[in-house]
Amino acid sequence: MNITANTIWSAVQKIREKAPVVHNITNYVVMNSTANALLAIGASPVMAHAEEEMEEMVGIASALVINIGTLSQHWIRAMLRATEAARKRRIPIVLDPVGAGATFYRTETARELIKAVPPDIIRGNASEIMALLDSGAKTKGVDSSASSDAAVDLGRALHEECGAAVCISGETDYTIGRSGVIRGRNGHIMMTRVTGLGCTASALCGAFAAVTADPALAAAGAMAVMGIAGEIAASGAEGPGSLQVRFLDALYRLSAEDIDQLLKLEVEA
Amino acid sequence: MNITANTIWSAVQKIREKAPVVHNITNYVVMNSTANALLAIGASPVMAHAEEEMEEMVGIASALVINIGTLSQHWIRAMLRATEAARKRRIPIVLDPVGAGATFYRTETARELIKAVPPDIIRGNASEIMALLDSGAKTKGVDSSASSDAAVDLGRALHEECGAAVCISGETDYTIGRSGVIRGRNGHIMMTRVTGLGCTASALCGAFAAVTADPALAAAGAMAVMGIAGEIAASGAEGPGSLQVRFLDALYRLSAEDIDQLLKLEVEA
Amino acid sequence: MNITANTIWSAVQKIREKAPVVHNITNYVVMNSTANALLAIGASPVMAHAEEEMEEMVGIASALVINIGTLSQHWIRAMLRATEAARKRRIPIVLDPVGAGATFYRTETARELIKAVPPDIIRGNASEIMALLDSGAKTKGVDSSASSDAAVDLGRALHEECGAAVCISGETDYTIGRSGVIRGRNGHIMMTRVTGLGCTASALCGAFAAVTADPALAAAGAMAVMGIAGEIAASGAEGPGSLQVRFLDALYRLSAEDIDQLLKLEVEA
Repeated sequence: MNITANTIWSAVQKIREKAPVVHNITNYVVMNSTANALLAIGASPVMAHAEEEMEEMVGIASALVINIGTLSQHWIRAMLRATEAARKRRIPIVLDPVGAGATFYRTETARELIKAVPPDIIRGNASEIMALLDSGAKTKGVDSSASSDAAVDLGRALHEECGAAVCISGETDYTIGRSGVIRGRNGHIMMTRVTGLGCTASALCGAFAAVTADPALAAAGAMAVMGIAGEIAASGAEGPGSLQVRFLDALYRLSAEDIDQLLKLEVEA
Repeated sequence: MNITANTIWSAVQKIREKAPVVHNITNYVVMNSTANALLAIGASPVMAHAEEEMEEMVGIASALVINIGTLSQHWIRAMLRATEAARKRRIPIVLDPVGAGATFYRTETARELIKAVPPDIIRGNASEIMALLDSGAKTKGVDSSASSDAAVDLGRALHEECGAAVCISGETDYTIGRSGVIRGRNGHIMMTRVTGLGCTASALCGAFAAVTADPALAAAGAMAVMGIAGEIAASGAEGPGSLQVRFLDALYRLSAEDIDQLLKLEVEA
Repeated sequence: MNITANTIWSAVQKIREKAPVVHNITNYVVMNSTANALLAIGASPVMAHAEEEMEEMVGIASALVINIGTLSQHWIRAMLRATEAARKRRIPIVLDPVGAGATFYRTETARELIKAVPPDIIRGNASEIMALLDSGAKTKGVDSSASSDAAVDLGRALHEECGAAVCISGETDYTIGRSGVIRGRNGHIMMTRVTGLGCTASALCGAFAAVTADPALAAAGAMAVMGIAGEIAASGAEGPGSLQVRFLDALYRLSAEDIDQLLKLEVEA
């Protein structure tokens, strides 16, 4: 797979030039912060969830991001309408299965969304991704969970089941697509003390997918940019309050040099 | 129309002295940031949308701000009850028709709200305002959209149709009321990279309308203060993250000198 | 009651070590900011309100925080299911009756919640607490409202009625529990210009209650930490924008020395 500092920078430039509309149906907690991250990187966020306007909103979007962080029946119906409309228009769909595995309701909703319209990218942490697998693969995932290859196995299993590029975030971010595995090692531990940065990562996956043909490259690029901006932000931050502020500034000011100097990626074909 | 640095500063002082209660039914994305902007300028925000309490909440408010950024049927009913209650109490009503024109649902909702209880101030961007016009005037608006007078024509048409002071925000902010046109040229391009500053402008229109008799003067004053605080915030900001923080600080610290030195207004009777 | 800088610091350390899951059903305005405050102090926030998953979510939590800031019928049902599940699991329940007294709907909802499952901690301002009292005590409260003991009387009356530790916040924070009264005098006037810091206080009460046996000590500790972090944040803040940022940083960096040097508490057995 061709993913380098150059290709990631090229995607950032395309986002800034085209300002793609990214339609988000996301949770209440992160609506403001994810919209701001999308604006900071150069995209045009739309946050809309009314069933009555789903087709029209998707109709002006270049990517759709579905995040199940705060659910209700009405929203699930809107998500299903939006993903159907997105598939018809052939725009990329990102799914963030927040809390899958924590409750039956979330697990079933995420699975229902995947079954109805398989997304192009699924991004979550290891336990969320594991909850999406069919039982056979799931057991296998649990069995190997001690090794660092567990995440790769997990991602491969889900990728094979539904075709999506699967991004498992953590200290190392694993992205598994049709042509291999990308391991990203950017980021900073203080980022775990800010709410919704995982959701922000999924939103940025939408922006990158809007300007990148291969979903796995889009997801890995978005994760790299998240991690690099997070490292820049954490350097000099007094805590998670200033980290948030500096993170948006870093996305806004991100340069080819930043990516070139800080990128930590390993690609395995 | 009598609008100068002095009258705008006088309105800011009144807001700080009286701390008027501004009742907002607004979208999920900006609830936090608009409440904070109202607090920073000195007003007392209430964010409440339950139908069951609309009359009582409006009953303690000095202004009502309706923003259709994230809609559902339940909220529209609350908006209608709130505007009726506001009209009975003769407190000013501000409408922000977020996304009108983008979807049929939003356009129709904004028109329904205007028809049910004509607001005192409507604030939006040019395409939102255009979507609210009846078809004849709308065509005229589209035809002249290339010239800078298009916005004035648009605002005049909507003002004539529904009686509201119409504020069209953009690089120049146009406010059209019964006695003429006010062009405001404050603001900073980086403000477009922060979500919800348009919604914040509408919320501030509510605060200014609570202490100003003429809706057009209230709206133009609020827009000027937005733009001036934005300029102060942008000066020295590293990006949209620090801009947001500095914007709230600037609203809080805003002085007569700031307004006097930075105000850029043209009034046309 | 044994509450000192040492016991408060010990609670902070326990929160940081155990990272207790605090389940919040709270209002839209403050979801992001309260989640961030909980993360900054070291807890693990969950924000979830779907009825379908209430029992499971409460099942992984060490404390439950109910905040009625933005209500609807669906949410009230979820709140009732959550408090029942919390009582069965014997985890502490915090209630923030935002706006009780302002509307009948809020007052009745808060009373209904207290009646259904009496909470361990109730935190609000004086008028909210007064609205929760039965009419007799309420009148008494009103009668004595001029003196600084009015708050203590109010808190005692509500504590006697429902058994909860009652925390009345204001310039002085009063916490009334089974063994006496704690007066906390930390905080800064600029904190009143930031939306949702009262809600944040209630969320922190949840984190402290998760690691503290006596609800009154938990609440008074949380209020002290709020006030101390607020004082640190206000020192050097340019306004409420930078105060918010510095507040999260201060929670994150809070040290034994900070508490030791700044704590202002009076205990009356």
